[in-house]
Amino acid sequence: MNVFDRLGLRWPIVQAPMAGAQGSALAIAVCEAGALGSLPAAMLALPALAEEIRALRAATRQPFNVNFFCHRPPEPDAAREAAWRAALAPYLAEWSVAPNTATGAPARLPFDADAAELMDALRPPVLSFHFGLPPADLLARVKSWGTVVMASATTVAEARWLEAQGADVVIAQGLEAGGHRGHFLEEGLDGQMGTFALLPQIRRAVRLPVLAAGGIADAAGVRAAQALGADGVQVGTAYLCCPEASTSALHRAALADAQQPPTALTNLFSGRPARGIVNRLMRELGPISPLAPSFPLAGAALAALRARAEAAGCSDFTPLWSGQNRSGCRTLPAAEITRALAEGWQ
Amino acid sequence: MNVFDRLGLRWPIVQAPMAGAQGSALAIAVCEAGALGSLPAAMLALPALAEEIRALRAATRQPFNVNFFCHRPPEPDAAREAAWRAALAPYLAEWSVAPNTATGAPARLPFDADAAELMDALRPPVLSFHFGLPPADLLARVKSWGTVVMASATTVAEARWLEAQGADVVIAQGLEAGGHRGHFLEEGLDGQMGTFALLPQIRRAVRLPVLAAGGIADAAGVRAAQALGADGVQVGTAYLCCPEASTSALHRAALADAQQPPTALTNLFSGRPARGIVNRLMRELGPISPLAPSFPLAGAALAALRARAEAAGCSDFTPLWSGQNRSGCRTLPAAEITRALAEGWQ
Repeated sequence: MNVFDRLGLRWPIVQAPMAGAQGSALAIAVCEAGALGSLPAAMLALPALAEEIRALRAATRQPFNVNFFCHRPPEPDAAREAAWRAALAPYLAEWSVAPNTATGAPARLPFDADAAELMDALRPPVLSFHFGLPPADLLARVKSWGTVVMASATTVAEARWLEAQGADVVIAQGLEAGGHRGHFLEEGLDGQMGTFALLPQIRRAVRLPVLAAGGIADAAGVRAAQALGADGVQVGTAYLCCPEASTSALHRAALADAQQPPTALTNLFSGRPARGIVNRLMRELGPISPLAPSFPLAGAALAALRARAEAAGCSDFTPLWSGQNRSGCRTLPAAEITRALAEGWQ
Repeated sequence: MNVFDRLGLRWPIVQAPMAGAQGSALAIAVCEAGALGSLPAAMLALPALAEEIRALRAATRQPFNVNFFCHRPPEPDAAREAAWRAALAPYLAEWSVAPNTATGAPARLPFDADAAELMDALRPPVLSFHFGLPPADLLARVKSWGTVVMASATTVAEARWLEAQGADVVIAQGLEAGGHRGHFLEEGLDGQMGTFALLPQIRRAVRLPVLAAGGIADAAGVRAAQALGADGVQVGTAYLCCPEASTSALHRAALADAQQPPTALTNLFSGRPARGIVNRLMRELGPISPLAPSFPLAGAALAALRARAEAAGCSDFTPLWSGQNRSGCRTLPAAEITRALAEGWQ
């Protein structure tokens, strides 16, 4: 029995952490349905995260996952920031947003000593990491608690690296997945593979349990992932329209759009490539812009504009994260989405 | 029983047509093994194609497929051609290839009246098309013979378009697939999906039989495609190292490279995005260059350089077409590859 099986989940299904679209309510519902609920920590200050974990523990005794980003915070680059603000200036003018408006973009902080201190106090059963792993000393500390450590790999080389560093579970993140790409060994996107190609190659390359992520929306997708050797699946997009998610009304409307606008990888909203539904900003600036400041700085210059537009019911400047397969998005309780997925697991 | 099933194949497996890497020998071996062998017509003059079809018919009584491209030949653009040749000039100088050397790049011609005339005479049981479909009058002529018409779709919109135009079978070409992307309704690549996302969405959108292509390398891949609703699969890369394929030694070496260099979509070799193993030209010019002339013109300026380098055992300027999952590439007879794939079909 592998370390993932030992969690004792009814189903080897992980609800993908989706910062900005969910908190403890969704995670609780998924945990209670027998899968692994996840709390995204990336956009929460630590006291708020502690509150969420306490709320979750008060509502369920099932195991759960807390997800952190592991990026290296960038050096500010005044010239790039200025070029980025210049590129956005016409939009700010159109919406009468003053260019120097103080920004309220949520900071995205990596897993650090303070986060480790809090996790030491709260000891969640599972921690998952995106963009690599924490520094070795912090990772050793996490592992000393017996916490199950999961981390995303987008290439075979990343999966091997995670295994060598001591991760317990590899999440094979196919190119179909919504939200931020988890790549960390190289910046280029050319080597990024679809789930059909990535999953079996990672399966062969490592001994660790492998979860499949990207494009899985229903029982058929779960069956297919299992056929390709997955020990479990991680599913995000299919949970975005659940009543327990905090997905905004604008985001829900885009997900339900009968025109099915395509998704693309974009760095405009955060500085790192992430998959979302193509909207006006992505169309007009191109989804990937060399002007966007490094992760996570790009979002700051957009924050006031985005807030103004959203208040007017406009999602032109809003990240509308979504995977390529949103056919599983239904306005159903998370327990029902979970049960529907679980029917695919043999 | 759908039109694809009515072909009477032992297995609903199509060997993907791979222009430049195979002719009748591979198709014959696949047909005799009970799957659908394909002859790629795109780089053959019609008399040579007729020869190949006659050779195939002399060797097997099983149904087979002939594949054509359906692009619109571009207007020559002298300025772009000059810019492209300027970008390549340092490489030509390095290899002592005179810039004005007459080129021997094989023409890639679309399916036209002459091709229809030949097909009318030879009546292959199946014709498949890439980059859309032939003009309506030619398509009507093909359909009047009772020929099964298959065509590639890379988006849900393309699948619906193919169904509306009268295709009999849709090939859902996921982003993992090697060789040329088949997109034809829009030029941008952002909407291109991995097989895991594309296949179930096309499956829901059309009533036609749907074949899955992209990332399928073995029995597990076939099982997964079937789980996602495929009526069959099309597999290319796994056949590239068969003795019956005409894949060059350099290409075979790249496919077998233990370092597993990544693939990327590149327009450098033909002018249209196609997936191949990253080599020096792709690294140094970037895999997608705005300088590359329109399909299929980009190849001409490279032909002499490529020939000179290949003769010296160097694949720096050679298209090394490959899907993202080459774990199924083995130096085994095509019949064995076919049987291994067939074990996945339930």
